[in-house]
Amino acid sequence: MATDEDNQVVNPWDVSAKDGGKIDYDKLIEKFGCQRLDQSLVNRVERLTSRPAHVFLRRGVFFAHRDLNEILDVYERGEKFYLYTGRGPSSEALHLGHLVPFMFTKYLQDAFKVPLVIQLTDDEKCMWKNLSVEESRRLARENAKDIIACGFDISRTFIFSDFDYVGGAFYQNMVRVAKCVTFNKVVGIFGFTHEDHIGKISFPPVQAVPSFPSSFPHLFAGNDNLRCLIPCAIDQDPYFRMTRDVAPRIGYQKPALIESSFFPALQGETGKMSASDPNSAIYVTDTPKVIKNKVNRYAFSGGQDSIENHRKYGANLEVDIPVKYLSFFLEDDEELEHIKKEYGAGRLLTGEVKKRLIEVLSEIVERHQKARASVTDEMVDAFMAVRPLPYMFS
Amino acid sequence: MATDEDNQVVNPWDVSAKDGGKIDYDKLIEKFGCQRLDQSLVNRVERLTSRPAHVFLRRGVFFAHRDLNEILDVYERGEKFYLYTGRGPSSEALHLGHLVPFMFTKYLQDAFKVPLVIQLTDDEKCMWKNLSVEESRRLARENAKDIIACGFDISRTFIFSDFDYVGGAFYQNMVRVAKCVTFNKVVGIFGFTHEDHIGKISFPPVQAVPSFPSSFPHLFAGNDNLRCLIPCAIDQDPYFRMTRDVAPRIGYQKPALIESSFFPALQGETGKMSASDPNSAIYVTDTPKVIKNKVNRYAFSGGQDSIENHRKYGANLEVDIPVKYLSFFLEDDEELEHIKKEYGAGRLLTGEVKKRLIEVLSEIVERHQKARASVTDEMVDAFMAVRPLPYMFS
Repeated sequence: MATDEDNQVVNPWDVSAKDGGKIDYDKLIEKFGCQRLDQSLVNRVERLTSRPAHVFLRRGVFFAHRDLNEILDVYERGEKFYLYTGRGPSSEALHLGHLVPFMFTKYLQDAFKVPLVIQLTDDEKCMWKNLSVEESRRLARENAKDIIACGFDISRTFIFSDFDYVGGAFYQNMVRVAKCVTFNKVVGIFGFTHEDHIGKISFPPVQAVPSFPSSFPHLFAGNDNLRCLIPCAIDQDPYFRMTRDVAPRIGYQKPALIESSFFPALQGETGKMSASDPNSAIYVTDTPKVIKNKVNRYAFSGGQDSIENHRKYGANLEVDIPVKYLSFFLEDDEELEHIKKEYGAGRLLTGEVKKRLIEVLSEIVERHQKARASVTDEMVDAFMAVRPLPYMFS
Repeated sequence: MATDEDNQVVNPWDVSAKDGGKIDYDKLIEKFGCQRLDQSLVNRVERLTSRPAHVFLRRGVFFAHRDLNEILDVYERGEKFYLYTGRGPSSEALHLGHLVPFMFTKYLQDAFKVPLVIQLTDDEKCMWKNLSVEESRRLARENAKDIIACGFDISRTFIFSDFDYVGGAFYQNMVRVAKCVTFNKVVGIFGFTHEDHIGKISFPPVQAVPSFPSSFPHLFAGNDNLRCLIPCAIDQDPYFRMTRDVAPRIGYQKPALIESSFFPALQGETGKMSASDPNSAIYVTDTPKVIKNKVNRYAFSGGQDSIENHRKYGANLEVDIPVKYLSFFLEDDEELEHIKKEYGAGRLLTGEVKKRLIEVLSEIVERHQKARASVTDEMVDAFMAVRPLPYMFS
């Protein structure tokens, strides 16, 4: 995959566009073989859930899918499904890009009233980031607090760490999947090499099997045909291509997917944010002052180099990060359209748009910090307890 | 490994000698890099345990080791260790060769008064024999009954199936081991290929980690430096070469090993018995009539082709299966020596030796069948319960 002919690399561990440019999402859809999430599907979601589509849906952040229409068919028939998402706990603090799938998943849970399993792949991070088992587990619990702070419904949500939960029915499904996937196959899908350790080669089934309800007997016993919908960023698609390939061979339903583009770095839209550069992202732990400073100093502007030119030519919205960020987090469609129109025409200056963005981000981050501060260890234990969820479908 | 220059293949899935001849155990010791178990070590075991060495030890069935002297040092200092052995449950009925490691392990447990963990690799057999998860688990429980029938002490013995027990501390150790082993490495050790499925490639850590006390927190919590001794057939050595290579890199003690040669087929000593030919072995389910018939019809004789020649030249004890089997199972050293002397001199006929062998085997099998018939499902549950063993060292 590293030698892809179009120089665009997108896999779970590496996202980089051709020659430092933008990710070409159309090419990605074609290459991965998923489907574009078009307006008619957004309309159908609104109709079925009797509520407006989430900002991320109506503005195309979640832009691709696999079999989402089948999930909606199931729901329309009055049946249910479950949601599965996850996170690799490799760092203490999450940035806003990390929150995107969780904010969206919370919306899906609220709109469809369905159960949700959240996998914390502490085993993966232990292996890829060379963290100790203990440190990976600690980070998993810390990250669980941020996830819980997104507002998930404890009566419908099971959060688990692989180091805690792998075993029993879950491990049995791992073996069923692993039997169907050759080394050659994972080389083709994930780009593993001979020098990779067997922990990496063993891992794909771990991320695959939460797609199958039988991996959660405490939740879905006797409900082996329950469909699963996975909201995730599109870099996770390789795992689920593999999973969907294997599923019918072991008598299971294929999971459906709803896939997002990447949240851009402050410096511009050339892939995912870099965890190694704290100035490339707004963290959920940032203070208002830090947010203000980061946006003002680092957020790449599409505005012109002088006020005169700006008034004359207007901002280039295609590359402007403040506008990109507002299109993720400013809920008000009219205000966003107004900003884009005025900024694009040069009547609004970058500084004014950044000021609005700083307000929006500070509010989100402050809300998150308050919510996270109220998450106790007991709440983490409660969300992570292996327990039935008797009201998960009601 | 299949293209070994000496044409002798010994790995966990394939045992075959050069050109259908005998396994060359000296070459195996040299190739694997283990040590010969010499008489001075046998004497030391007898001295430390204050009892005669087991037949399998004093007659060289267990002929090789790794660091057995260190285990005896530990024991002599008044410290303890634990035993680890296992079985891949691929068939319903065990043959006498399958009982060899368990009979010997029971002796070690009784002589040293130490705890024992027995791994049933139902996951392995599910993957290598393409059994369903359900069938592998069923066979694991059936085989557990035969193992329990060997007389293990429930206050010192924990039997577990991988499909049940993998998870938690055990899984965490699997990941620690997997991180230290590349694909290239398992190709070198086990001969895996690109076409092998990733289940096989993932498996070696599963068999490795029972070597580490921290994989059993209910037994050995806080006892991370407890040494482990593994009695097994020498075909399992590749797993533990790998394990011993990894152990110091993750801060663990290397397991010690005591390794047996293979129990020969009735047709002659050219490797392990074939599970596909029921007439190549005496099964623990065989009736006295079947045993008599198998020994008389199939046990390869080193006797001469006529009584005249036999009286003149005597039997070739090197290839004679009745004598081999008696050297495994006839406890009385004097009687065995007498038989060998008389038979080798031609004064005893093959039929007479076979008659004695039939008596010995029938008695062992009958005793086993009685013991197994008294093993209830509740006893299996009790041996397999994840529980502390408060008296395991006393």
